Amino acid sequence: MSNEPLVIFTPSGKRGNFPVGTPILTAARQLGVDLDSVCGGRGICSKCQITPGVGEFSKHGVTVAPDALSEWNKVEQRYKDKRGLIDGRRLGCQATVQGDVVVDVPPESQVHKQVVRKGAEARDIVMNPTVKLYYIDVLEPDMHDPSGDLERLRDALKDQWGLENVHADLHILQEMQPILRKGGWKVTVAVHLGDEENAPRIMHIWPGYYEETVYGLAVDLGSTTIAAHLCDLQTGDVVASSGIMNPQIRFGEDLMSRVSYSMMNAGGAQEMTDAVREGMNALFVQIAIEAGIDKALIVDAVFVCNPVMHHLLLGIDPFELGQAPFALATSNAMRLRADDLDLSIHPSARVYLLPCIAGHVGADAAAVALAEAPDKSEELVLVVDVGTNAEILLGNTEKVLACSSPTGPAFEGAQISSGQRAAPGAIERVEIDPVTKEPRFRVIGSEIWSDEDGFDEAIATTGITGICGSGIIEMVAEMRLAGIVDAPGLIGAPEQTGTTRCFQDGRTYSYLVWDGSAEGGPKITVTNRDIREIQMAKAALYSGARLLMDKFDVDQVDRVVLAGAFGAHISPLHAMVLGMIPDAKLDAVTSAGNAAGTGARIALLNREARGEIEATVRRIHKIETAIEPRFQEHFVNASAIPNSVDPFPILNSLVDLPQATFNTGSRDANSEGRRKRRRG
Amino acid sequence: MSNEPLVIFTPSGKRGNFPVGTPILTAARQLGVDLDSVCGGRGICSKCQITPGVGEFSKHGVTVAPDALSEWNKVEQRYKDKRGLIDGRRLGCQATVQGDVVVDVPPESQVHKQVVRKGAEARDIVMNPTVKLYYIDVLEPDMHDPSGDLERLRDALKDQWGLENVHADLHILQEMQPILRKGGWKVTVAVHLGDEENAPRIMHIWPGYYEETVYGLAVDLGSTTIAAHLCDLQTGDVVASSGIMNPQIRFGEDLMSRVSYSMMNAGGAQEMTDAVREGMNALFVQIAIEAGIDKALIVDAVFVCNPVMHHLLLGIDPFELGQAPFALATSNAMRLRADDLDLSIHPSARVYLLPCIAGHVGADAAAVALAEAPDKSEELVLVVDVGTNAEILLGNTEKVLACSSPTGPAFEGAQISSGQRAAPGAIERVEIDPVTKEPRFRVIGSEIWSDEDGFDEAIATTGITGICGSGIIEMVAEMRLAGIVDAPGLIGAPEQTGTTRCFQDGRTYSYLVWDGSAEGGPKITVTNRDIREIQMAKAALYSGARLLMDKFDVDQVDRVVLAGAFGAHISPLHAMVLGMIPDAKLDAVTSAGNAAGTGARIALLNREARGEIEATVRRIHKIETAIEPRFQEHFVNASAIPNSVDPFPILNSLVDLPQATFNTGSRDANSEGRRKRRRG
Repeated sequence: MSNEPLVIFTPSGKRGNFPVGTPILTAARQLGVDLDSVCGGRGICSKCQITPGVGEFSKHGVTVAPDALSEWNKVEQRYKDKRGLIDGRRLGCQATVQGDVVVDVPPESQVHKQVVRKGAEARDIVMNPTVKLYYIDVLEPDMHDPSGDLERLRDALKDQWGLENVHADLHILQEMQPILRKGGWKVTVAVHLGDEENAPRIMHIWPGYYEETVYGLAVDLGSTTIAAHLCDLQTGDVVASSGIMNPQIRFGEDLMSRVSYSMMNAGGAQEMTDAVREGMNALFVQIAIEAGIDKALIVDAVFVCNPVMHHLLLGIDPFELGQAPFALATSNAMRLRADDLDLSIHPSARVYLLPCIAGHVGADAAAVALAEAPDKSEELVLVVDVGTNAEILLGNTEKVLACSSPTGPAFEGAQISSGQRAAPGAIERVEIDPVTKEPRFRVIGSEIWSDEDGFDEAIATTGITGICGSGIIEMVAEMRLAGIVDAPGLIGAPEQTGTTRCFQDGRTYSYLVWDGSAEGGPKITVTNRDIREIQMAKAALYSGARLLMDKFDVDQVDRVVLAGAFGAHISPLHAMVLGMIPDAKLDAVTSAGNAAGTGARIALLNREARGEIEATVRRIHKIETAIEPRFQEHFVNASAIPNSVDPFPILNSLVDLPQATFNTGSRDANSEGRRKRRRG
Repeated sequence: MSNEPLVIFTPSGKRGNFPVGTPILTAARQLGVDLDSVCGGRGICSKCQITPGVGEFSKHGVTVAPDALSEWNKVEQRYKDKRGLIDGRRLGCQATVQGDVVVDVPPESQVHKQVVRKGAEARDIVMNPTVKLYYIDVLEPDMHDPSGDLERLRDALKDQWGLENVHADLHILQEMQPILRKGGWKVTVAVHLGDEENAPRIMHIWPGYYEETVYGLAVDLGSTTIAAHLCDLQTGDVVASSGIMNPQIRFGEDLMSRVSYSMMNAGGAQEMTDAVREGMNALFVQIAIEAGIDKALIVDAVFVCNPVMHHLLLGIDPFELGQAPFALATSNAMRLRADDLDLSIHPSARVYLLPCIAGHVGADAAAVALAEAPDKSEELVLVVDVGTNAEILLGNTEKVLACSSPTGPAFEGAQISSGQRAAPGAIERVEIDPVTKEPRFRVIGSEIWSDEDGFDEAIATTGITGICGSGIIEMVAEMRLAGIVDAPGLIGAPEQTGTTRCFQDGRTYSYLVWDGSAEGGPKITVTNRDIREIQMAKAALYSGARLLMDKFDVDQVDRVVLAGAFGAHISPLHAMVLGMIPDAKLDAVTSAGNAAGTGARIALLNREARGEIEATVRRIHKIETAIEPRFQEHFVNASAIPNSVDPFPILNSLVDLPQATFNTGSRDANSEGRRKRRRG
């Protein structure tokens, strides 16, 4: 046994003997304990705060005396007077070992601290950003041994921080000399730690110790909205979140209309590129104002987006994405300078774009894969990012498959007669009494159901304006459960359904949800055409998932994750009644919220995650639904509600699906009927 | 012994047995024979031309039958019809082995061919440029295995050329997709092969096989002039050379006046940066016009310059270079994008700046070291780059020392009463008869001496306007040899020298070289003040060299190389009489011409030379003359002509240096005299 005092770190449990007088920070470094420091042990940055324990630690077999650490010193006192220090805390660079001691490293003192992720199913975010701050002492120039100021600064980074082969952006060279002298040859530098394409680079330099922080952006660039999180790159905290409409909407609501705009108009792609970059810059100004920071402190940014947005952001004409074989210009991750994209943040800021999986499965799907990590799941997990185009991942630790399926805009309330975007006044929850066939519902902006007291007052300002995407899913599922719609998707006649809410509406029947016409409001109905739209959308989604299940040779999945803002609002039971997702236990169906945005945040805060998702994406096997022979078959089967072939045993154990069928052969509401009539 | 035919390549002597039918290009590649190809053996580029031998090759022990290679094929015939092929040449990718054969690879078919370097003393230039062209077949996109077009292009570079980890500049992504399709998935790409900071990158893409070439610039950015060579990056040929005055001259003639301009004027450094960059762009336009090429085909550029120009080009305020300790912002080599420096050549063009050796010894000195390679010399070689500031290198394979010495502008004809720049009409060669003390001379623009018939006619247009830098050196040396100037530097009186060409001129004497006043021309004289200026300049040069010799502990060097355009015109004997360079055998003193420019060209054409000179510069030991105690002593000794202490034995074996001294104590032409009089 060593005569030197024993130092035990918690929570890591790492331990070792050190000579009396060793600073705790030094001991931590030698043991590989994750204890932060920006100033390198000079008592300036306070990042190395630790909490020494005193007394009996039977678990560790040591007793810690009150004087196990050196006395509180004047550096610590000065720091405490100036900035404050939590009681019981010491600075690890100042407190030295005097006897056996147990030292706790609180989470905020860890470099690789975990960022709290609300309701995280899959992975935590461990801080390991691409840009870090280092405080260094630079040697003064010496005529006897001439060398450049930058070279001595590089030497300091190597000697004091172990950073090798660090280069400098040109603007650093242009501003460095006066800053070095102003700081008395002590400076703080922000270093981009490099990647497979680029050596590490100094991005910013401050005289002396820089007390503030630097920021990064995680941007989810969607066809409709652009959402950004501004993150502190030292703590990982989201300091502001903001969003704007994608200014490209004026060129077309959906992706294909934008691709065709670029085909039909010379310079159209460039116009859209300019628009999205301008929008992005406006968003960055807005988010910096919201956070009260200088946007020049934003040194890193990660973007996730679908392939068309990816190409337009990069200034690549998306022409090829509009036609088979849907060739991406590049599918790999992109590492760029922000000024390559005309983004006005820090002049040296870097931009990282996640890789695309295929021509229809973009960096947003890769971000979902990063956030939900199907490749790390022992269970077979289906991840569905529901949108105009659904991205579908199915996998486990063995392999991951991906495809996309063109669900169309019905799930967003578009092309539905009473459909609308999710906004106050939209019906979002529905129940239909299976006996009376009467509906009750809730609208966005109120928690009161339509048959409860106070409903009229609650909706006085918003009115009842339509049905949103998640509302239409519940609506159709409830209609099916109540026997108003049959399995093939026909709405029954009043005599078949026993309710006058079903009414003849042209050649088919519609269901009256709400008649606001007396008050000058809309009459909200569900038409048989609406049912058809939902059937098409959900069949596209299900058949994509089913195709991946075929490739896995399974009929069931262990878990279903619904990603996307919309996914958060879908009721698992109703989705299953609709046959939108495969049969699964209800508690195995969860929502991941904006998983693409989370993936962007992970890639922003953890540089290793970038290499990881790139490797994962290379391993993901892509299935092009358009050329898979079974896709059409699955699609036809999935047009029924829930499905004409797949049995859905778990669903059937939960609900009774009425067996009635409303097709009497006299109407042409489905194609079979039409065909029969034409032949006759 | 193998039954397979034997293939012997000359001049390499590499040999091996190959199956009948093996293309010669394939055999060459397998043996590591340096045989060029851009198209990868598709019979398009004709770079792989070879000359097969026929008959008895006793040296190699083989007899080559007339049918040792396959018959002339239609690909070769088509190529010959279209582009022409030298008789006896074959295309190495088309001709296949049929029997034992001796194949000569002509120099122009070698990738690493040597570039002919006029009068090269040190190293040849072996072609190995940073940007190379590759013709590739790219796989078409496949929906079953989706990947980006760039990724398949990268795969082609890897599979067909062994190039790994190649990235693409953003503009490549923006233009690549239509080019790939236009070329039918066959394209030629220009690849920057990368360096320690950057991964290899595709810089340009052409549809199909690109028949032309790409270019690079070797730029010698001097304080007074900017000179550039435009080189073909495939052949190494200089296709155009051009120069302009440095537009910064309007801010000050010499470096220190420019440094002080930046100190005295806010934004002054930026003005000078803008000026030099604008000048550079003007030069590039000029040189491209001269060569008849599109300047967008210039993909690489190498710059050499002194530290002040280096900083101003980079946009760094040279403030620190104007005062001790003369700290460079950076001394390492710089690898930049041309657009970082606002240079409008190819949008992806790269720029390489050689490393600086010290605050007063710049990238130009590094380029001289690269061209003259003292570190590779067994003999101890002194390399002197004569200019306003002399850069001095002394070394051999053991070590290399460097210093700079402020010679001032006297060697350029400035601050000399009748001095002028080297231009027609300037006296450049002089002889003074030791008996009559009469001068004869030659002026720039004429080969006729002033005492020869036809001289007057020859100079009718130029006149005799002054004395240029090399002329003043010969003049002073001749005056010393003729006994007109004594060792301490005094011009003798008529009675002391025996010639009335010496005349009283204020307190000292001057020597009349030419009186053109009768024809309205100038009276060209050498004043004692002129002698003083030359003494100061040559003493600075010599004492720098002497200091380095001290560090080597030698009194003599084996070789002296005079670099710089001016160095080419200096007569070794006269330089030695002056005591400007150390005593040496006359044939051991050579001129290297514009060695800095040559160094730039080497670094442009051979990428390995970049790493080499960086390593060499790191090993070069820098001596700061200003802080060396013996420098003053050497300087004082070197003020005498040739030297008051150093013996110059070789010189004394060649010439008789008159021993007369003209200081009679009655004049104040030297400080000793002055001091005596003041005391008296």
